[in-house]
Amino acid sequence: MISFTCDYTEGAHPAILERLVQTNFSQEQGYGADRFSERARELIRQATGCPQADVFLLVGGTQTNATVIDALLRGYEGVLAADTGHVAVHEAGAIEFGGHKVLTLPQREGKIDADGLRRYLETFAADESRDHMVQPGLVYLSYPTEYGTLYSRQELAAIRAVCDTWKLPLFLDGARLGYGLASDAADMTLRDIAACCDVFYIGGTKVGALCGEAVVFPRGNAPKGFFTTVKQHGALLAKGRLLGIQFETLMEDGLYLRIARHAIDQANKLKTIFLQKGYPFYIDSPTNQQFPILTRAQMQAVSAAEVLFEVWAQLPDGRCVTRFATSWATTDAHLEALEAVLPPATTPGN
Amino acid sequence: MISFTCDYTEGAHPAILERLVQTNFSQEQGYGADRFSERARELIRQATGCPQADVFLLVGGTQTNATVIDALLRGYEGVLAADTGHVAVHEAGAIEFGGHKVLTLPQREGKIDADGLRRYLETFAADESRDHMVQPGLVYLSYPTEYGTLYSRQELAAIRAVCDTWKLPLFLDGARLGYGLASDAADMTLRDIAACCDVFYIGGTKVGALCGEAVVFPRGNAPKGFFTTVKQHGALLAKGRLLGIQFETLMEDGLYLRIARHAIDQANKLKTIFLQKGYPFYIDSPTNQQFPILTRAQMQAVSAAEVLFEVWAQLPDGRCVTRFATSWATTDAHLEALEAVLPPATTPGN
Amino acid sequence: MISFTCDYTEGAHPAILERLVQTNFSQEQGYGADRFSERARELIRQATGCPQADVFLLVGGTQTNATVIDALLRGYEGVLAADTGHVAVHEAGAIEFGGHKVLTLPQREGKIDADGLRRYLETFAADESRDHMVQPGLVYLSYPTEYGTLYSRQELAAIRAVCDTWKLPLFLDGARLGYGLASDAADMTLRDIAACCDVFYIGGTKVGALCGEAVVFPRGNAPKGFFTTVKQHGALLAKGRLLGIQFETLMEDGLYLRIARHAIDQANKLKTIFLQKGYPFYIDSPTNQQFPILTRAQMQAVSAAEVLFEVWAQLPDGRCVTRFATSWATTDAHLEALEAVLPPATTPGN
Amino acid sequence: MISFTCDYTEGAHPAILERLVQTNFSQEQGYGADRFSERARELIRQATGCPQADVFLLVGGTQTNATVIDALLRGYEGVLAADTGHVAVHEAGAIEFGGHKVLTLPQREGKIDADGLRRYLETFAADESRDHMVQPGLVYLSYPTEYGTLYSRQELAAIRAVCDTWKLPLFLDGARLGYGLASDAADMTLRDIAACCDVFYIGGTKVGALCGEAVVFPRGNAPKGFFTTVKQHGALLAKGRLLGIQFETLMEDGLYLRIARHAIDQANKLKTIFLQKGYPFYIDSPTNQQFPILTRAQMQAVSAAEVLFEVWAQLPDGRCVTRFATSWATTDAHLEALEAVLPPATTPGN
Repeated sequence: MISFTCDYTEGAHPAILERLVQTNFSQEQGYGADRFSERARELIRQATGCPQADVFLLVGGTQTNATVIDALLRGYEGVLAADTGHVAVHEAGAIEFGGHKVLTLPQREGKIDADGLRRYLETFAADESRDHMVQPGLVYLSYPTEYGTLYSRQELAAIRAVCDTWKLPLFLDGARLGYGLASDAADMTLRDIAACCDVFYIGGTKVGALCGEAVVFPRGNAPKGFFTTVKQHGALLAKGRLLGIQFETLMEDGLYLRIARHAIDQANKLKTIFLQKGYPFYIDSPTNQQFPILTRAQMQAVSAAEVLFEVWAQLPDGRCVTRFATSWATTDAHLEALEAVLPPATTPGN
Repeated sequence: MISFTCDYTEGAHPAILERLVQTNFSQEQGYGADRFSERARELIRQATGCPQADVFLLVGGTQTNATVIDALLRGYEGVLAADTGHVAVHEAGAIEFGGHKVLTLPQREGKIDADGLRRYLETFAADESRDHMVQPGLVYLSYPTEYGTLYSRQELAAIRAVCDTWKLPLFLDGARLGYGLASDAADMTLRDIAACCDVFYIGGTKVGALCGEAVVFPRGNAPKGFFTTVKQHGALLAKGRLLGIQFETLMEDGLYLRIARHAIDQANKLKTIFLQKGYPFYIDSPTNQQFPILTRAQMQAVSAAEVLFEVWAQLPDGRCVTRFATSWATTDAHLEALEAVLPPATTPGN
Repeated sequence: MISFTCDYTEGAHPAILERLVQTNFSQEQGYGADRFSERARELIRQATGCPQADVFLLVGGTQTNATVIDALLRGYEGVLAADTGHVAVHEAGAIEFGGHKVLTLPQREGKIDADGLRRYLETFAADESRDHMVQPGLVYLSYPTEYGTLYSRQELAAIRAVCDTWKLPLFLDGARLGYGLASDAADMTLRDIAACCDVFYIGGTKVGALCGEAVVFPRGNAPKGFFTTVKQHGALLAKGRLLGIQFETLMEDGLYLRIARHAIDQANKLKTIFLQKGYPFYIDSPTNQQFPILTRAQMQAVSAAEVLFEVWAQLPDGRCVTRFATSWATTDAHLEALEAVLPPATTPGN
Repeated sequence: MISFTCDYTEGAHPAILERLVQTNFSQEQGYGADRFSERARELIRQATGCPQADVFLLVGGTQTNATVIDALLRGYEGVLAADTGHVAVHEAGAIEFGGHKVLTLPQREGKIDADGLRRYLETFAADESRDHMVQPGLVYLSYPTEYGTLYSRQELAAIRAVCDTWKLPLFLDGARLGYGLASDAADMTLRDIAACCDVFYIGGTKVGALCGEAVVFPRGNAPKGFFTTVKQHGALLAKGRLLGIQFETLMEDGLYLRIARHAIDQANKLKTIFLQKGYPFYIDSPTNQQFPILTRAQMQAVSAAEVLFEVWAQLPDGRCVTRFATSWATTDAHLEALEAVLPPATTPGN
């Protein structure tokens, strides 16, 4: 059985496990005051070019989104997000649990844009009943998006400019940040991201860690009491070392981007396999998630050979958008297995 | 430097790390549908003697308490707990964040008792303004308590009986469950706990795991939608395998209780060291947390030798209650180091 | 100055004020235990044909929606509503404040329909990631809608059938219930509404009361602890008599529907005025809110004469949808004043 | 039947009803933008000597407490209150519903004191685990307290000084403010209260209004978005005129304090009746709530004559603390009726 269903099918990059073993009996303080976490935070400050950054290591994505958003919003404010945004759809109401509405914006290929954002804000400001409505208090976007797409430097700068005009902080969900930055299509670096956002996170769970998301407030701008907010959200790990060791390992010697690049290389090969066999794609994703379109028969052929993938959406003509994800752990053998079982598309170019 | 500050100073039991390494490249489904989690749940069903049990693997203690309590209470209900209970004091308002009040009961040595509970409920029921008050909806207790003490079988049965009379579910916080069950003073087994409670958890973080708490609804009585509630609370790990592997390891061959017993043995030796040097104890704890009373000078002597502990409380006479915790990882060398630097108490028996 | 901006520009129906004066010094119990509230509840039970109904008198609409929805949902559930629904847009996030997401459905003229609802539920049930999403737990609709439109008996029955299939309670927001039931287009009675819904409310604030909304659980099906939930939501009035007296007055001798019918009569006259002068309407509303389309010049002519109305939306061609609302208090003199200042539409039929 | 059970047994002061009738057909804007509310706000600014004050008119006490506290606290903060404080006990968890813990302080006769407050804050600041605890973010007190007692100017100044030192805002619950200010024991005026607090409210419901509490931020210091927060809490009345008219009436010509003084006069007479008949008091209350101690037989004698009161608490010796409340509406005839049926205490001075 071989799985392309997601980018969290394996454990952790071996370097992480090795380090866990090496450091296992070192006695450390709890709750993030351990030496590994301290070093991880320092490495992140260096890698982001933000010596003043406040860095917090949390456990998972939904938790991180809920904690950051709740910390940045006042009670009467909501978060603006693409209507396909993870916080809007797939977090079981975690944002609302914290009392906040997700205000949705139309998206294209998973991305919001500066114009749509500006229009929303202008319409809101012109609405005579705006004081009876949830106030926009924060802009959320993901990089890469839930569709694997990337904002260009210019697109992000334009969104940032709208945020500045309207005095809205910008929060970038980087659950798959590595796979974005390592993409051929990326025209931004980690430093660019840090310079552009008020807060973002470097996703570990999907990029080689067992778990962990590193929240960065680049200019030392963590909201007051953020540590306590993290605790209140159940997001504070007693053995903070588990997160510290992982991020220390990932951020050392560029391992994070290196293994992310591996996933991109594998995604490119995967894309080629589908293209060569004549498959269309639902979206042109430059990152580790690929969305080829398959007929039911084609899907069945692949599944029957125990090569797994996700069914993403059904098209009106009965075909399905599928998701094949690569990761730091995807081997050439995995891809060869896929190639071996993937039938040629009967109607190439369809 | 040697630390007795808490029971989460080291990483994980080596068997866990070994298993993480062995299984690292096995491809698994996410969110707890992996084979390790499935096996861990099955082992827990066996160990608790509850073949119908619903088992969920969460990440940390505060998170688990907040999730379980929120799932069990209706909006107008609160949770009854000792006023020293972890949920009442040291969870940064995680319960209130979920909208619920912690209704506090007086405690003795960290324990509530059936009489106090009954009195509270009777007084509440007789209060003419009770409909203007938070309704008691759940009883929370910890085993061992925050003071290291244990409920006897009889005490717990009496509390259970009150719960039955008043139709209140009983939730046992087992963050340190192993250290309770392995204590010489324990007259209950894991099966007894499961038989007595409506929900409890087997604490991993403090008993040999990197992280993880196994929530058990012994009679398949998990509230509807609990999986989604877990997700909403940010408590659902994408790589559920991390939790599955740990609990599979801990619940196999009795490892959990064996390493807990080691901590008790070390606590007994630690207690002897203090007693032989003439130190009084604040409380007679039969578990892995010990609370000797030291003068400032005595504390300084120990600290100066880089043997660390926690200052728990200050007494009116200037002395301090300290906490020395042992764990699955406490070695004889640790204890010898302590013995070497601990000065004799100047006034034995004080 | 004459105002058609909304249906809450005046105080209360004189019969209410008269009753307030008459009863002023009668000493009554607080919090809804007064004799007027008791009688009001009884009159509502009679008028709805539901002798077992649980009736609660709350103060305002947003408050009532937030309280009822919170009481009916479990934490992981959300409420389904038209994306134009009051709870979705104009309640400042009151539902989210209670921890619940508003799950929006597409609407036509403010109405959801059984097919759209069924499609949502089927899609949800078929979504493999549904357990990571907010579960639909309640259907909300308003009668009349925010656009002044009405569900027919058949439309409501079809929605009810979907609710039954999916075991979802149905909640009808009746903030303007009277104006719906009194409409020429209505094919339902108060008893029909009661028979069809799991909970609904009879709006007082907009139909002749100073304030007040009567929540009805027709089959004695108020959720456990609802009184305490009301208190928790800050919705319990100490002087419950204020609400009791108002609903007692409104529900006696059919006053409620009689004054609602007056508003409909006035709305019909108002509609005629606009039609005769050649104005188009944005929507064909059979209730007390009318939505004629005016040019800027036409709006200015009316405003300049101190006849007030609400600008509802701007059309692409620069014209505006306006809202002119009548109420129990709209006099013929009001309408004559409007007629006098409303210029003929330059392009009739446009 | 005559009732002394509380201070909300009657409707409203006749001048309020008269004004409601007079103004009934004046067309006004909704949501507090009416001319009566504007004038009420202006009168309150004058009466408090705070020309810059932000004033909001809300409906009820629990609602007001919940809204103000939620607006002033950040998510990780809690409100400090006497453990007998209304927010701590009798608001059905409304504060916790908003996500905040009530941090309780010991009280004497319903009052906290500066020393107790300072000790709490010092202990908290010295607690090494304070970041794992709810941060104190606001001080709440009531004037008069739930026991009818009053803070002296000096006591309040001392509390204020602690608040200043610790940068905590001070919130005064004035649900019965008039009965405090009009007391012979009061050494503070409305201006003094305004000068001392960061926010407080002038209670209407219990002092002659049908409903309504006027929240005052004396120095224009309402938190950003407070109007929307009020709406979100379901506390915004569509017909704000109902509140505006009432407070305009109460704040004109000193009516508010005049009718409050009447209640105090009646309370003084009531106290004399009990004292002359030899009854002891549980507490020496200088306001409109009196707490005489009666035996069961004495209570029965009074009840049997249909003179109603509240049983406040039961004493160990079987006697009960009762509450007899006067109000703006208490007549001499009420008191004479009480005097006629109250038996002499068998053991005077007991």
